[in-house]
Amino acid sequence: MLKLAILYLSSNILPPTKQKMLQKKMKTLVLSGEDVNTILENYGLNNLMNTLIRRLTEAIEDYDSKTIEVPIRSGFNYTFENTGLIEMMPIYQKKAKEVVIKVVGYHPENPKKFDLPTILSSISAYNTRTGHLKVISDGVLLTALRTGAASAVGSTYLAKPDSSILGLIGCGAQSVTQLHALSRVFDIKKVLIYDIDKNVVNSFNERISILNLTIETEISTIREIIAESDIVCTGTSIEVGAGPLFNNLDHKSHLHINALGSDFPGKTELPIGFLKQSIVCPDFLEQAKIEGECQQLNHGEIGPDLVKLVRNSESYKYAKNQTSVFDSTGWALEDQVVMDLFLELAIKFEIGLEVAIENISEDAKNPYHFLLKPIQV
Amino acid sequence: MLKLAILYLSSNILPPTKQKMLQKKMKTLVLSGEDVNTILENYGLNNLMNTLIRRLTEAIEDYDSKTIEVPIRSGFNYTFENTGLIEMMPIYQKKAKEVVIKVVGYHPENPKKFDLPTILSSISAYNTRTGHLKVISDGVLLTALRTGAASAVGSTYLAKPDSSILGLIGCGAQSVTQLHALSRVFDIKKVLIYDIDKNVVNSFNERISILNLTIETEISTIREIIAESDIVCTGTSIEVGAGPLFNNLDHKSHLHINALGSDFPGKTELPIGFLKQSIVCPDFLEQAKIEGECQQLNHGEIGPDLVKLVRNSESYKYAKNQTSVFDSTGWALEDQVVMDLFLELAIKFEIGLEVAIENISEDAKNPYHFLLKPIQV
Repeated sequence: MLKLAILYLSSNILPPTKQKMLQKKMKTLVLSGEDVNTILENYGLNNLMNTLIRRLTEAIEDYDSKTIEVPIRSGFNYTFENTGLIEMMPIYQKKAKEVVIKVVGYHPENPKKFDLPTILSSISAYNTRTGHLKVISDGVLLTALRTGAASAVGSTYLAKPDSSILGLIGCGAQSVTQLHALSRVFDIKKVLIYDIDKNVVNSFNERISILNLTIETEISTIREIIAESDIVCTGTSIEVGAGPLFNNLDHKSHLHINALGSDFPGKTELPIGFLKQSIVCPDFLEQAKIEGECQQLNHGEIGPDLVKLVRNSESYKYAKNQTSVFDSTGWALEDQVVMDLFLELAIKFEIGLEVAIENISEDAKNPYHFLLKPIQV
Repeated sequence: MLKLAILYLSSNILPPTKQKMLQKKMKTLVLSGEDVNTILENYGLNNLMNTLIRRLTEAIEDYDSKTIEVPIRSGFNYTFENTGLIEMMPIYQKKAKEVVIKVVGYHPENPKKFDLPTILSSISAYNTRTGHLKVISDGVLLTALRTGAASAVGSTYLAKPDSSILGLIGCGAQSVTQLHALSRVFDIKKVLIYDIDKNVVNSFNERISILNLTIETEISTIREIIAESDIVCTGTSIEVGAGPLFNNLDHKSHLHINALGSDFPGKTELPIGFLKQSIVCPDFLEQAKIEGECQQLNHGEIGPDLVKLVRNSESYKYAKNQTSVFDSTGWALEDQVVMDLFLELAIKFEIGLEVAIENISEDAKNPYHFLLKPIQV
């Protein structure tokens, strides 16, 4: 036993228990697409969306720019052979000792060319004490969920409380979670739908059947949607420079629009006239000025951002009786909230695969340590 | 059969074969620390370092700024509770249709506090046709390997060809791969070692025993190392503002230094006098000006970058007979070369775990599709 102890000391090998503990501690939880589906199923669809909306609201209420850093997302966009972009959305939360990075790809030709979603994504979380990668998870379902939750929060503070008619311009993957999230906070009775692709319109009812909503769906024109809706969500793959989706249309005096489509310099969905008459609330001001509807406005024409709106809800109550826009470009705080929730639930339900991705050498000072053959005592 | 076909059509479910193909195609290869060790063992340590040095040289020779984008790395650095940084190092290669992102953590207290390496890291590669995450791999071993290979390339073009005495200032994890890589391109006969930590110095010989080199190791002072070496590698965790490691020391007229330690604004290892008299070659100019030894120089005092040096090696031959510095801040091209090599070898040796991380819904337009129960025919 003594001999063994000396051996470990001299060869820089940690005793087995310590080594084992270290590796156990340093594993990365891998949450696959199937894992996040299982978590959603176990926790319940409505339960999960409710929790997500509540936690996002709390995260916004607690937002402290002194302890949270969110750089504007950056990455690569290209038109070589195909149009697309791959971007990194990082956030650092000092108090949580956590960095979360979402890598998100936007490739509008994916559905038609490859039967794949427009948005492919993964989310990683790191411990800032050591730099350890705690978890890597699907980001496709999580992005759809958090984008829905963000519209629910934005609409809660900007739309008329008795809103019951929802218009969806663009009925792709995001529209499903938009309807789901909004139906958790408003008594939606009727949904007016429009998509440039007839097949997407025609499959809508079947796709939302899982939500078990008592609503009427009506295939509509953009003109009808803008005229009749209390709340509208625009989630289109409109091309750069091709906007707006409509112009000079009649609308209810309290119309609220969640604009989710703009996520690219030059890509916008809403007419400048509507923006100028409305209170426009960006999720993340600096980013919205570059990629969102706010591109079309001067700084002074932009309303409170989401943090200011939620924290000073009393002062902005008037917004519910006039036209308003939630300029939802996608905010890393939303990614962190949804990632943390899924990580918590994965641990609770014991779902996911633990893999020691990082190469933790038994001797931290020797990357080739594993090649040393065990010594015979 | 007809009934089934209609069902698939109406419910937007792809036929099983197509669906299976899609999921197979969309899996992510997860390469754990153990996997990259196995690849290294199967391919052979020297073989791998030789291949890596050759491929890095070729990638530099072929480097085309019109088809490769490398933004300066960015992320978070903090001194809250502990000192550290987490950064993203992305690269886009148009021709390879690939984005590679390394996330790297630098936490100098890791070895002492947690028995963990200073650098923890993972590397991911994405297909730019769809945004698909092809692979996520350990980045700890890969970073150590590619940093070694980079010094081998830099030294090949800057150091005296008959260099035989190598000095190592800082004998941590990186020093092992520095010695390994340099021993593949120079006939190293003697290694002079120094580290602020005596234990690290004392364990050096045992750590490098796996390299089977016929060399003499001598525990030295920094003064002795600078005086006697042909090539020196500085790889220290010197604190911001605490540099340089030495000043006004005698040295051979052809001394070449690979400076790897500076990777942070304000963190530098070499004295300005030595830099000013030397030809200083940064791996990545714009980054080296912010984080490398080049911080200390005016633009006009900086020599050719690695691409210019390798491509115009004849014009820079004179560098081998004077003092020179390879300012190695760490370059995303190196990460891509090592990631691509390990991905290729993983496929060849059938190593790694395939996980469908991205949630590819059977219906790309419906993230909740999995909740639809199979219909009885």
